[in-house]
Amino acid sequence: MSGGPLRFAASVHEEWTIGDKPNGGYLLAMLGRVAAAVGTHPHPIAASAYYVRAPRPGRVAIDAEPLRKGRSASQVRARMIQDEQVCVEAILITSELDPAAAPYWQAGLPDADMRDCADCPRLIPRLPSGVRVAIMEQVEVRLDPDWSGFTRGAPSGRGELRGWLALPGEKHFDPVSLLFAVDAFPPATFEIEFSGWVPTLELTAYVRALPAPGPVRVLQRAELIDSQRVDESCYVWDSAGRLVAQGRQLAGVRLG
Amino acid sequence: MSGGPLRFAASVHEEWTIGDKPNGGYLLAMLGRVAAAVGTHPHPIAASAYYVRAPRPGRVAIDAEPLRKGRSASQVRARMIQDEQVCVEAILITSELDPAAAPYWQAGLPDADMRDCADCPRLIPRLPSGVRVAIMEQVEVRLDPDWSGFTRGAPSGRGELRGWLALPGEKHFDPVSLLFAVDAFPPATFEIEFSGWVPTLELTAYVRALPAPGPVRVLQRAELIDSQRVDESCYVWDSAGRLVAQGRQLAGVRLG
Repeated sequence: MSGGPLRFAASVHEEWTIGDKPNGGYLLAMLGRVAAAVGTHPHPIAASAYYVRAPRPGRVAIDAEPLRKGRSASQVRARMIQDEQVCVEAILITSELDPAAAPYWQAGLPDADMRDCADCPRLIPRLPSGVRVAIMEQVEVRLDPDWSGFTRGAPSGRGELRGWLALPGEKHFDPVSLLFAVDAFPPATFEIEFSGWVPTLELTAYVRALPAPGPVRVLQRAELIDSQRVDESCYVWDSAGRLVAQGRQLAGVRLG
Repeated sequence: MSGGPLRFAASVHEEWTIGDKPNGGYLLAMLGRVAAAVGTHPHPIAASAYYVRAPRPGRVAIDAEPLRKGRSASQVRARMIQDEQVCVEAILITSELDPAAAPYWQAGLPDADMRDCADCPRLIPRLPSGVRVAIMEQVEVRLDPDWSGFTRGAPSGRGELRGWLALPGEKHFDPVSLLFAVDAFPPATFEIEFSGWVPTLELTAYVRALPAPGPVRVLQRAELIDSQRVDESCYVWDSAGRLVAQGRQLAGVRLG
């Protein structure tokens, strides 16, 4: 149906990194912005990214191609390229989220009790290994002390983090930046046992509603570590208490 | 690195359908088989499919292209095509699952208590609306009566199903057929409120371990219905009690 992909120029910012690796959710949000531009709908509502090679900070190309432009939703294929090699391969759905919509049923969501934002200390932007986590100087990650023993050297073993997330300059979240939000927290495995880098292999995000202004509440948890891989599920609620995004990822982890 | 996609001929079986629509997990498994053929590793371990158009039963083409062939894993892009139109667009990771591996940590998994297989009646292969569910005559879906009130017209409202799944002819599961297993159960929303067809928009499966022979235990649950879309998470344990696959999907649902 199309004449091949459209090419966009973009730049991976050196401050949205962990060590020298760009954050996976940040890269997915870059692809989400392009998908909204080439589709006929403004909001990414589902997005899956496969991380083939970590791009270096700096110039990249993004190729995007609508697979189908429907009445209520479009599907878009997008990839990030550097040095003529695929870095991230993604598929997305765009649609238009209705500001008047309301949840119909939500009894299956996890409990998300956590301390108020002001009672959650901001994460110190450095790993125990000494690696600089530049991205944490950009975004504000505040972890509930009851769910982040690892920051005091005493992981609870529950494999679950709870806390708050805010964008730089008090910028409000939108459907594109929610694609980042589902990968903004440290690995939930840190609350089991500290390991080195936990590279995202695959990340899927669903954007379920338009977020109200303000910081978002985040719950991130692991279910299983097997064969040096871990799943992590992430839930994001807006300041009005509505579930606005869900994420799930498969990551590599040097445990076991 | 590659000279473009390789094309495979395949056939969507008319008996692996709900009404006239092929099952989404079945289509993903078809793509998984091709991904294993074009990569350098035998087992799909992660796979995401976006359902653009439902193919009719019959001949399809599958185009598959390795994005990167790594030492321990490969990434593959694959798509199913009919009448020169994209039906399913997918990205997959293949690797080699180690038969000697064991879970390192699994405290985050849901409780999966359910009745023995023999105490779970086989699902009657017809929807309340009268639509024939041909696929249920192929595979054996047995639902725990405590978790399937909808089969007696009395959904519990919990949005969760539990039960057992077996392949035709007592065929054993493998990593490819586990891609099907995460979408084999009826929609978990039936246990909230019956609606018509619940079309899968996106499905991601992780294969976490090689399954032991025998039927698998399945837990499928919904978390949130909002804007006529629902997420569903699926967990699959093998006959030895090991978690072997996880799925998550976003589907359309006519509720709300």
